[in-house]
Amino acid sequence: MRYEDLLQRIREFNGERDWDRFHTPKNLSTALMIEAGELAEIFQWMTGKESADLPPEKLRQAREEIGDVVIYLLNLADKLGVDPMEAALEKLLKNAGKYPVEKFRGSAAKYWER
Amino acid sequence: MRYEDLLQRIREFNGERDWDRFHTPKNLSTALMIEAGELAEIFQWMTGKESADLPPEKLRQAREEIGDVVIYLLNLADKLGVDPMEAALEKLLKNAGKYPVEKFRGSAAKYWER
Amino acid sequence: MRYEDLLQRIREFNGERDWDRFHTPKNLSTALMIEAGELAEIFQWMTGKESADLPPEKLRQAREEIGDVVIYLLNLADKLGVDPMEAALEKLLKNAGKYPVEKFRGSAAKYWER
Amino acid sequence: MRYEDLLQRIREFNGERDWDRFHTPKNLSTALMIEAGELAEIFQWMTGKESADLPPEKLRQAREEIGDVVIYLLNLADKLGVDPMEAALEKLLKNAGKYPVEKFRGSAAKYWER
Repeated sequence: MRYEDLLQRIREFNGERDWDRFHTPKNLSTALMIEAGELAEIFQWMTGKESADLPPEKLRQAREEIGDVVIYLLNLADKLGVDPMEAALEKLLKNAGKYPVEKFRGSAAKYWER
Repeated sequence: MRYEDLLQRIREFNGERDWDRFHTPKNLSTALMIEAGELAEIFQWMTGKESADLPPEKLRQAREEIGDVVIYLLNLADKLGVDPMEAALEKLLKNAGKYPVEKFRGSAAKYWER
Repeated sequence: MRYEDLLQRIREFNGERDWDRFHTPKNLSTALMIEAGELAEIFQWMTGKESADLPPEKLRQAREEIGDVVIYLLNLADKLGVDPMEAALEKLLKNAGKYPVEKFRGSAAKYWER
Repeated sequence: MRYEDLLQRIREFNGERDWDRFHTPKNLSTALMIEAGELAEIFQWMTGKESADLPPEKLRQAREEIGDVVIYLLNLADKLGVDPMEAALEKLLKNAGKYPVEKFRGSAAKYWER
């Protein structure tokens, strides 16, 4: 599914319920953070290794929380007039300049210092 | 830009730096939450109205933080084998059943109770 | 109740259950953030005014989430050997130098720029 | 330092700057979460073991972020009329009933399911 199509569905969903009046960027950014917290909660007491090999029920929960994060993220970006994919690409290019391959390859210590 | 193309760029970026060993779902979900916090920080002392009419410098910052959130989100979903757009569509359909239009339209009190 | 006494109770609680092996500073800081998210969730769709005049059930929930935040905070500070009250006082003194009264009094714009 | 004394200092700090009008529970709970995110950021790419043995500069940063978390937490609890230490003790007693020692002692699997 293209994100433009998904965004259109999100707009209709909110429009039908007249929820856009609650959806200021301030409120949406808080909601996004809270949903990201619910996603992180799934993994919080696992080891890194355990989090990479989830039992089916945990994976189902994670999938659902990812859905929530995407919905708020697209909604927020829409309200700000930001294309999230373009914003990510720009940031990736900026990061490529900031963390050159030769300097950061395979160095945990430097990764820390990012 | 299609998210599949963006995801491909993110994979290459991480691969070149050998950063995937840090990128467990556990760590990525924490990073996603922290980035969502940096995004929310921009709006934290604004009114809702102010957040909907940002000065250019704040909008530029918000765009950059949105980029960070998208990067971690796609990376995390990729590690879990989840298609984020499909996950969001499923959640939207689930929400449509949970919050029927006739019951939730225009009601702040009910919105609270979600 | 003095926080030293509360901390002692928290230590006993964790010791009896052998939970300290999960309680690395990394895990505790993530748990603290997630609990802070559950607290923020109570207020997320309210106006500022509504959040200052909570119905009893919401206040009861907020009180319980505050309890969770305090427990993880004291536990984390304990693991790091940090006295949280002293750390806060030091930060307050530092902030007093950074935000002098005459410059920041009553200015929303400057508050934003903090 | 007793937390009541610290709270008094926080009240004076905010009063002198006329900042209480920004300090609704809604805004303070968001700020608390954001600060908790800044604290978690210090540990995000460390292993659990590394987070338990911080280099001095990282410990100094963690101490400062803990200070910020405490300041917002006491401020928020004050606005809601909640005693944070009493709230934590109550929650600890509630948790003691929910997670009995004999059932939860030394079980990672059960810890997950909390």
